[in-house]
Amino acid sequence: MKLSHIEHIGIAVKDLQSSIELYEKIFGIKCYKTEEIASQKVITAFFRIGTTRIELLASTDPESSLAKFIEKKGEGVHHIAFAVNELEKQLDDARAQGIRLVNEKSEKGAEGLDIAFIHPRSASGVLIELCEDKSI
Amino acid sequence: MKLSHIEHIGIAVKDLQSSIELYEKIFGIKCYKTEEIASQKVITAFFRIGTTRIELLASTDPESSLAKFIEKKGEGVHHIAFAVNELEKQLDDARAQGIRLVNEKSEKGAEGLDIAFIHPRSASGVLIELCEDKSI
Repeated sequence: MKLSHIEHIGIAVKDLQSSIELYEKIFGIKCYKTEEIASQKVITAFFRIGTTRIELLASTDPESSLAKFIEKKGEGVHHIAFAVNELEKQLDDARAQGIRLVNEKSEKGAEGLDIAFIHPRSASGVLIELCEDKSI
Repeated sequence: MKLSHIEHIGIAVKDLQSSIELYEKIFGIKCYKTEEIASQKVITAFFRIGTTRIELLASTDPESSLAKFIEKKGEGVHHIAFAVNELEKQLDDARAQGIRLVNEKSEKGAEGLDIAFIHPRSASGVLIELCEDKSI
């Protein structure tokens, strides 16, 4: 695959507002946006550091996969998203190399971007998101 | 604090060689270096994606803190490192804001860089490394 840069890092948090306050202190900048993604039952808060966004993710439903992640692993890094172009082609390449994907097809993520996930079993325990970036 | 970009992401893995092979497939590039850091009882393998390095970390000693991390949490993201300048000043700022640090003073990390860690309790479960970058 061809990955240009880290588009964002998703961090699973229990309480969005208190985590926003912590990260505003650490980063010395303000969160620039929050967005609810109803399909994933999460609410997100964004920061920008260099070419990467940091996305805090809090669950809006105790049955969401994010809530289950936190229950099992605690708060912390949930996924790393890499920017790619020609996402569907990259997914075909990944499958051809025996890389296990979470979904067979891409779906819509935050900010309307096409995304897909590599299964953590194919990436040493890391959930990797591939994120279409038509500008690269 | 003033953070310029994500310098690297550290990923805890059980077996360095098999994880290098997985990530070479995912990234479509070769690991450019491995380095043993005796003081931390780890061996590392580096990839570069955009302005960020991905650092695979395997333990060289079952008593290392990395081995204990994997025992407790499994393989996955171990820490995120942000590039800063004037590291000691940033640590003073962090303390003044009530951010908890792992060590009071900076230490030497991979590639001879001065580093320090923010405690996961002050960052929603994420171990954050601050990494001196004199070029910024």
